[in-house]
Amino acid sequence: MSGLSDSSNISGGKQPALRRDASRNARRILDAGREVLRENPQASADDIAKAAGLGIATLYRRFPTRDDLVRSVIWDIFATDVAPALTRAEGEADPRIGLRIAFEAAMRTSAYERIPFPVGITLEIAQSFLGPASRLIKRGQELGFLRPDLDPENDTLRILLMLLSVLPTFSHQSGGWNRYLELVMEALTLTPVKPLPPAEPIVDPFQHA
Amino acid sequence: MSGLSDSSNISGGKQPALRRDASRNARRILDAGREVLRENPQASADDIAKAAGLGIATLYRRFPTRDDLVRSVIWDIFATDVAPALTRAEGEADPRIGLRIAFEAAMRTSAYERIPFPVGITLEIAQSFLGPASRLIKRGQELGFLRPDLDPENDTLRILLMLLSVLPTFSHQSGGWNRYLELVMEALTLTPVKPLPPAEPIVDPFQHA
Repeated sequence: MSGLSDSSNISGGKQPALRRDASRNARRILDAGREVLRENPQASADDIAKAAGLGIATLYRRFPTRDDLVRSVIWDIFATDVAPALTRAEGEADPRIGLRIAFEAAMRTSAYERIPFPVGITLEIAQSFLGPASRLIKRGQELGFLRPDLDPENDTLRILLMLLSVLPTFSHQSGGWNRYLELVMEALTLTPVKPLPPAEPIVDPFQHA
Repeated sequence: MSGLSDSSNISGGKQPALRRDASRNARRILDAGREVLRENPQASADDIAKAAGLGIATLYRRFPTRDDLVRSVIWDIFATDVAPALTRAEGEADPRIGLRIAFEAAMRTSAYERIPFPVGITLEIAQSFLGPASRLIKRGQELGFLRPDLDPENDTLRILLMLLSVLPTFSHQSGGWNRYLELVMEALTLTPVKPLPPAEPIVDPFQHA
């Protein structure tokens, strides 16, 4: 994903001027894309180029299609706004608190940035969330805090999808989705009435994207 | 929604021959649409007209756009396959069993017919499910079987969305989604650790459709 490699290049001082310009342009496009898409998820690549103060040709050189652009914007949002929360989450002594921080960050960012669900998510984006969240679930199970019959490998993505699926039922600035995070957290921490049916492997739900 | 009014006309014997033909054609289109879209959710209106043995002009006379057609097919699937389960569900003495029947029918039918989530669902389709399911939740609360802090009016749709959101992670013939129905049913029946945050009113999540 070009967006991410661009942002990691931004601080590099040794690049030739042309490459430095290209990085700076990519950064401007990603920042403009975030703002413009948050206001209007249907905005065109042209709208985003204008907001970035760049020509559409420059935009298309970095992001050959609108889909590439949208996915790079979402990847960039994730890298800047969710990834740090995951690091904090993994540092929590109580993995239940860590897990809530992780899910809360994914929900809050998706709600605030109005990331279109599920078409804005790719397996690549989801996976960078799933590693830390799965490790937190495993640790919670080892400590006896979470249902022993959870299967971190296959359940984590589905729990994330369940949480994100309620977001479109709230107005933009609402935090009402917290209610469903609480409900799910209680479901994960409860003592099972009976063991769950087995967890089947994941089929990529984002193939359409 | 033309699909539904058509099917209610099919058995009427007093219609003029032209109207009877039109009803029969609508029925053939809905049946073909169900088969064709199940095999290929991207199928065109043309594919569906061919499978129904009708011209595309006849199809467009009943269903002016592909979207109208797809939504009428989904409405018809719901009316024939989910609605009867809801009647059975409401007849159950134990509303927990009824609620499981209702959610199970929605998940099974959506999975089997590969109803695209969430774009295939409209608030109109969801609402015909929500009435019976909300009444079951209310009855379960009155009997002390379900969390007292559930808000049937605002939680039922969100619970349905959560359940449907896991379906795309399973292969077509899998019943592995039952695991998440069990998890959610346990969450609804558990004794709350602490009361949930308040339930905010629903914003129509299907406006994009």
